[in-house]
Amino acid sequence: MALRDVDEQIRPEDFAGELARASAAHVRGLIRAGEITGHTGGMALGRMQGNLAILPADLALDFARYCQRNPKPCPLVGVSETGDPMLPTLGEDIDIRSDVSSYNIYRDGELADTVTDITDLWRDDLVTFVLGCSFSFEEPLLADGVPLRHLEEGYLVPMYRTNIATTPAGPFSGPIVVSMRPMPMAEAIRAVEVTSRYPMMHGTPIHIAEPAAIGIDDIMQPDWGDVPVIRAGEVPVFWACGVTPQAAVRAAKPPLCITHTPGSMLITDLPSGRPAGHAV
Amino acid sequence: MALRDVDEQIRPEDFAGELARASAAHVRGLIRAGEITGHTGGMALGRMQGNLAILPADLALDFARYCQRNPKPCPLVGVSETGDPMLPTLGEDIDIRSDVSSYNIYRDGELADTVTDITDLWRDDLVTFVLGCSFSFEEPLLADGVPLRHLEEGYLVPMYRTNIATTPAGPFSGPIVVSMRPMPMAEAIRAVEVTSRYPMMHGTPIHIAEPAAIGIDDIMQPDWGDVPVIRAGEVPVFWACGVTPQAAVRAAKPPLCITHTPGSMLITDLPSGRPAGHAV
Repeated sequence: MALRDVDEQIRPEDFAGELARASAAHVRGLIRAGEITGHTGGMALGRMQGNLAILPADLALDFARYCQRNPKPCPLVGVSETGDPMLPTLGEDIDIRSDVSSYNIYRDGELADTVTDITDLWRDDLVTFVLGCSFSFEEPLLADGVPLRHLEEGYLVPMYRTNIATTPAGPFSGPIVVSMRPMPMAEAIRAVEVTSRYPMMHGTPIHIAEPAAIGIDDIMQPDWGDVPVIRAGEVPVFWACGVTPQAAVRAAKPPLCITHTPGSMLITDLPSGRPAGHAV
Repeated sequence: MALRDVDEQIRPEDFAGELARASAAHVRGLIRAGEITGHTGGMALGRMQGNLAILPADLALDFARYCQRNPKPCPLVGVSETGDPMLPTLGEDIDIRSDVSSYNIYRDGELADTVTDITDLWRDDLVTFVLGCSFSFEEPLLADGVPLRHLEEGYLVPMYRTNIATTPAGPFSGPIVVSMRPMPMAEAIRAVEVTSRYPMMHGTPIHIAEPAAIGIDDIMQPDWGDVPVIRAGEVPVFWACGVTPQAAVRAAKPPLCITHTPGSMLITDLPSGRPAGHAV
């Protein structure tokens, strides 16, 4: 998998973009009009951005089960009605056929095309799933003063396949993929406290220290992202990562699956970290 | 709806039962053998007890969507494979055909029968849903010293229909039903802190004080349960309640729906309040 297949690409400059203070609806309007075709990191700060998986209805119940059984890597924040391209539970006037800046079209698990609109591919049997992603995840950590080395140094967060299996559902299975951030143990403990409030952005870490305990042989050889900088006195802290369901969906080889292009997320109207239905 | 239709029936004596310290598997064995046929409140303390809804597969995706969209009244803790009576994500050797002490059989939304085993009713197209319930919900409040009047006084917790609609999915819709516990405002604030850690047991309250704001005209006339005792200086605190999905399922009038008989819950192996998948 190349770097372009990876979502966790927030860079320091993303937090200073001119669209950071724009509303989600404004940014989606620019995307729908074709004026934004790339990366959405740092746009509409404070609004939940989500990973996208569009599947035929005959796989939808299995995928819903997969998300229910694996809430840390697959936090399910929205599901459309079958055949309905709108997502009223995630925001006003969201049309999933046009409101993501770039889509990957997979056929039988293979990337067949990358497009900026899927109106002509839409079918009456498609179901849209939106999963929480880590784009908003680092905001509360930064606000709390937890140091994030990859932002300080300007590298991509490293990701690793673990030896922890997800709980399968129908054709969906595979290992949990984690992202890693190094920090002193006291900060890691604080990071657990902070992220415990955000179950829809992968929640608390799945492991701290001892990479070998989760099947990572060499922390300096990530499967995706950049080689980390780990200083003396620091431990690696591992969070479940959105690459997990992406890999599970591709491995299931559905006849058709449409995802966002990595980095080009759906920007919802929901506050970051708050799932639909938690307003009441 | 009569009192027997209501789950929230914990009484003070439930916390002193001789099966309180038994394992979940031990209690399920007694249920499977027909030695327990009633109420499971207070048994296998510390293990999550769940509400049951078994539906034909053609309604399962809609019901999964309904739970996803309404996590406070409908916290989804487990979903079976289609046609498979076992629930490996919730515990060892759980056979949903025999491991609940009493089942209600609904046909077209009407109660058709109450039985202690559904083996002869099982079909290849049935899907089991298990939802978090409030049986374990009051343990952490009690442990924290939050006063619970209905336990002190020995009455059933009162429940009310609100004017807050759930977010519909397919044929499933209806108002949020709430349970109410009166306490001083300082205790209510603490109760929010405590219950925020238990999203799978209805989580934080949906409203505090001012019953009229959520469509409750007379707090002394609950729709289910007993008339409350509210003392000077206390505010009513309202939590979403498991009667919500029960009412939504019945109103949808599925050809077949099997639920637990109120009070006769599925006892899982999961620690109270921790959903499947949160161990990793």
